[in-house]
Amino acid sequence: MGISLNQEREIVIVGCGAGGGTAAQLARKTDRKANITVFEKGPYPQYSKCGLPYTISGKIQKPLDLIEFSEDWFKKAKIDLFLNTNVETIDTDKKIIYARKEKDLIEKNYDKVIIATGSKPFIPPIENIKSENKLVNGVFVLRTIDDAEKISNFIKKGSSAVIVGAGFIGLELAESFKKKGLKVTLIEALENILPRVFDNDMSDLIEREISDQIHIITNHLVTKIETQNNTISNVVIKDNNTNSEAKIKTDILVIATGCKSKAGLAKNAGCLLGKCGGIVVSNKSETSVKNIYAVGDCTEFIDYISKKDVPIGLGSIAVRQAVAAGINAAGGEYALPDGVLQTCTSTFFGLEVAAVGLSNKELSDYKIVSAKYNGSSLPEYFPGGKKITIKLNVDEKTKRILGAQAAGNKAAQRINTFACAILADLDIETLRKLETAYAPPIAPTLDAETLVCDIVSMKLNRLK
Amino acid sequence: MGISLNQEREIVIVGCGAGGGTAAQLARKTDRKANITVFEKGPYPQYSKCGLPYTISGKIQKPLDLIEFSEDWFKKAKIDLFLNTNVETIDTDKKIIYARKEKDLIEKNYDKVIIATGSKPFIPPIENIKSENKLVNGVFVLRTIDDAEKISNFIKKGSSAVIVGAGFIGLELAESFKKKGLKVTLIEALENILPRVFDNDMSDLIEREISDQIHIITNHLVTKIETQNNTISNVVIKDNNTNSEAKIKTDILVIATGCKSKAGLAKNAGCLLGKCGGIVVSNKSETSVKNIYAVGDCTEFIDYISKKDVPIGLGSIAVRQAVAAGINAAGGEYALPDGVLQTCTSTFFGLEVAAVGLSNKELSDYKIVSAKYNGSSLPEYFPGGKKITIKLNVDEKTKRILGAQAAGNKAAQRINTFACAILADLDIETLRKLETAYAPPIAPTLDAETLVCDIVSMKLNRLK
Repeated sequence: MGISLNQEREIVIVGCGAGGGTAAQLARKTDRKANITVFEKGPYPQYSKCGLPYTISGKIQKPLDLIEFSEDWFKKAKIDLFLNTNVETIDTDKKIIYARKEKDLIEKNYDKVIIATGSKPFIPPIENIKSENKLVNGVFVLRTIDDAEKISNFIKKGSSAVIVGAGFIGLELAESFKKKGLKVTLIEALENILPRVFDNDMSDLIEREISDQIHIITNHLVTKIETQNNTISNVVIKDNNTNSEAKIKTDILVIATGCKSKAGLAKNAGCLLGKCGGIVVSNKSETSVKNIYAVGDCTEFIDYISKKDVPIGLGSIAVRQAVAAGINAAGGEYALPDGVLQTCTSTFFGLEVAAVGLSNKELSDYKIVSAKYNGSSLPEYFPGGKKITIKLNVDEKTKRILGAQAAGNKAAQRINTFACAILADLDIETLRKLETAYAPPIAPTLDAETLVCDIVSMKLNRLK
Repeated sequence: MGISLNQEREIVIVGCGAGGGTAAQLARKTDRKANITVFEKGPYPQYSKCGLPYTISGKIQKPLDLIEFSEDWFKKAKIDLFLNTNVETIDTDKKIIYARKEKDLIEKNYDKVIIATGSKPFIPPIENIKSENKLVNGVFVLRTIDDAEKISNFIKKGSSAVIVGAGFIGLELAESFKKKGLKVTLIEALENILPRVFDNDMSDLIEREISDQIHIITNHLVTKIETQNNTISNVVIKDNNTNSEAKIKTDILVIATGCKSKAGLAKNAGCLLGKCGGIVVSNKSETSVKNIYAVGDCTEFIDYISKKDVPIGLGSIAVRQAVAAGINAAGGEYALPDGVLQTCTSTFFGLEVAAVGLSNKELSDYKIVSAKYNGSSLPEYFPGGKKITIKLNVDEKTKRILGAQAAGNKAAQRINTFACAILADLDIETLRKLETAYAPPIAPTLDAETLVCDIVSMKLNRLK
């Protein structure tokens, strides 16, 4: 091997998560004849990592149901899928990839490589969390099908659970545990839940809505765990303000404090890594090395609004980058917008939340005008209206939306409209005049989306 | 009277529907000192006409619950509201309005007038429909609180009902009748239900979804009604293709074949009427006569996409025009976009539908590329996904969306995103790259909104 003798394009994809799998599909769609090879370190083909929390509640019956494209699917698409296969190096001079499946070394020549190696859980420095370099019995992360199965096998009705990290996954898992009859404590090191995505006032509002369901402790670090019979028995937490310590008895601890890009393979191949530790990619998913693309959690890109580097951690972005990488690697042309909007959503304990753009913590470079509107999803006279809150942060100078956040009825779809406005560089004075769909059982004549814009506009006009 | 001696602005509003009422509120917000007078022909202050069908099913308990702003509210806002008062003429030279309340003639000087006289039901030429210039017993329209009360008092469980006109109101009323235990037949003169808003294929799809609930007869005219004891007993319908006639026994007939602008007062005051018979207004809600504004169903404006005249028949537009009229009449400045998007929505028999822009019947001047996507609201692996269909008509040349139509899950909010794209002149190639909010219980990574754009894009690229 080493030099390709046939004339078909050789496309090799490293990783078969949502990013790698989608890239393979798009490459196949773009070039029917290309030889496409996918190496996946784990034992499963493309499955939804975002679905993992729902396998624990039983909403999704078993973790294997999350597989979106089976080995058979790849076979039919004439994509060579190697599971349990670890790519060790990429020789960019010879254009050969070296992978290992058990004892076998596989050499694969390539024309284009797409790296989709994903990320690994970030484990905060907690005393005694590991024993012999493995997480102590009863301590888990939730990143793979195997993790989910282990957690499901471990929990028992009536047990107590501690989750560290009040991001989306922490909250989704909290809901799943609660549904399984566990007593749940959620611990967040920062002052608010969902601190990365929401402004503090929105986080507070969300916390109030769900605080009767679980015990939430913010502004506390987990410093230490205590064990009994080699199994977790207590976590020790420390108040960030007072440094006072407290102990929480628990049967299980799950760490949901975010992820770090797995960019080692790309780095060794010469790909530039960025400030966030991810592989730097263009809007065509190109890395700094010719013929190598990268997509998903192993990458970083720029934010659409601030143009600053941001780590990629959303499946929706991974898939879009993969569309670009798959098409471009296969000889097509596809460019994403110059930056990511970071539109995101989640739902827990019956509350839907969503956001797009930047939270006000990331907007210190801007003079912002903010407004929050609390209203009903329906006209006052119509029964069954549900709560909806929308907050906007708008640039005083350009009158463009820098961030939009919502909690309540159809939060995700409402945020999509603001995402569209951001992508289109629409200013708030135009957006407030948007004719939104109205019918009494569906939405008021002036929806929360419109009224929150009106408040911003009023504030902007007062500043004149 | 005749000449205003005090120095406050005199704003007179004719009509207290959603348009007039909203204009009054915005005028008050804009000028705290202005003298604001509202003349309303009927006995009620501002109420939701769009809510009327829901008073018949009992979803809204009684028609008076639809009143959104009470007489007391107007009093507190220091707005003089005259109910049961008909404005007869506007003397634009002397700037006096002449109104009549029972026997009293009221003269009111004005600086600015806002005409919001609404529309009246269009009654098609049906033999015997009237007796002594009144609708025959058992024949109704649904346009006012009084109409709704009369219909509610007339219907009995087990009765049969015929509705003429398969627009939104016809379908909403059909649902209400069905809920009250009536057997419902819906008759539409054109080939499809919802013919004005949807393309035929979308209408067909909607009809299939609801056809087990009511009897739908399209492409038939109601030509005649027969009576017994001065009350309706049968309607005679005629097949548009074959001219063959049939008779349907019914206890009640409701006419829901649309409305005509009530523009007589404005016309007599010299305001220009347009091709659709409505008062021609600017994007500031100005008429052709100085100091006279007009809003709502009595007006016509241009469509945002085609720039052709269109009648205004949506409450959402009336309210937006009223915001402009109220602010501008009170000395502020407010301009709407150059044309209406006609975003609209409805729900009946559990199906939500929505649309924005033009249907393909109105797009004969364009070379259009169309796509329809049928999918699920959730990822395949997640239980509880609901059907969603989105259709787009896109301009082959500019790649801009000319119309978007949806049926199914969260159709209205999804259509709002397309409305935003149209307002922002966003082309389909950019819109397909929009990061929509993703989470397994809420939406797939690539939502129907994205996938329908992808199909259009693929078709556009094939044409290259």
